[in-house]
Amino acid sequence: MYGMQGKFTAHPGKRDDFIQILLRAADLVGQLPTCHLYTVSEDRADENGILIVEIWDDKPAHDASLQDPAVRALIGEAMPLMAGAPTSVEFNVVGGYGIKD
Amino acid sequence: MYGMQGKFTAHPGKRDDFIQILLRAADLVGQLPTCHLYTVSEDRADENGILIVEIWDDKPAHDASLQDPAVRALIGEAMPLMAGAPTSVEFNVVGGYGIKD
Repeated sequence: MYGMQGKFTAHPGKRDDFIQILLRAADLVGQLPTCHLYTVSEDRADENGILIVEIWDDKPAHDASLQDPAVRALIGEAMPLMAGAPTSVEFNVVGGYGIKD
Repeated sequence: MYGMQGKFTAHPGKRDDFIQILLRAADLVGQLPTCHLYTVSEDRADENGILIVEIWDDKPAHDASLQDPAVRALIGEAMPLMAGAPTSVEFNVVGGYGIKD
């Protein structure tokens, strides 16, 4: 499986609004059988930081999700709340505990 | 819920051995009702990099797991494979998809 850890930085005071958009994205992608995890979290060390973790069947499944019109609409909604470019790290999941089939 | 993303760097050629130890750690902590996720992954951009993601009820539950004698034994086994100090980012999970109860 393919995974991705990402960090978004919201404009001051906009983190909660940004998070609500990401939770709606999670609801959308969670309906796809290729998506195993999509968590939305507050960075404990940065009051404007938002951390997401995604796990998918493979990278193409993840990349395809970004082409979904409903997901693209949410990205468009989130863009004005974003301060600077997001950062991310990609990984290949070997195993562990708690990953949904 | 509390979460943590961490990165370990293995000595060259030792990543697979390191990962096997972490998978045993995942088996142990996965038995704790306070642990919701513990994934072990290869960093796609660093042939010596290992990425873990953990989600727990709260930070004390995570910290307590590090005091477990069996977990400590695995940490001791992993130490010689580790090149440099691990890095981590802590977060508060707001929601999302795929998190085990």
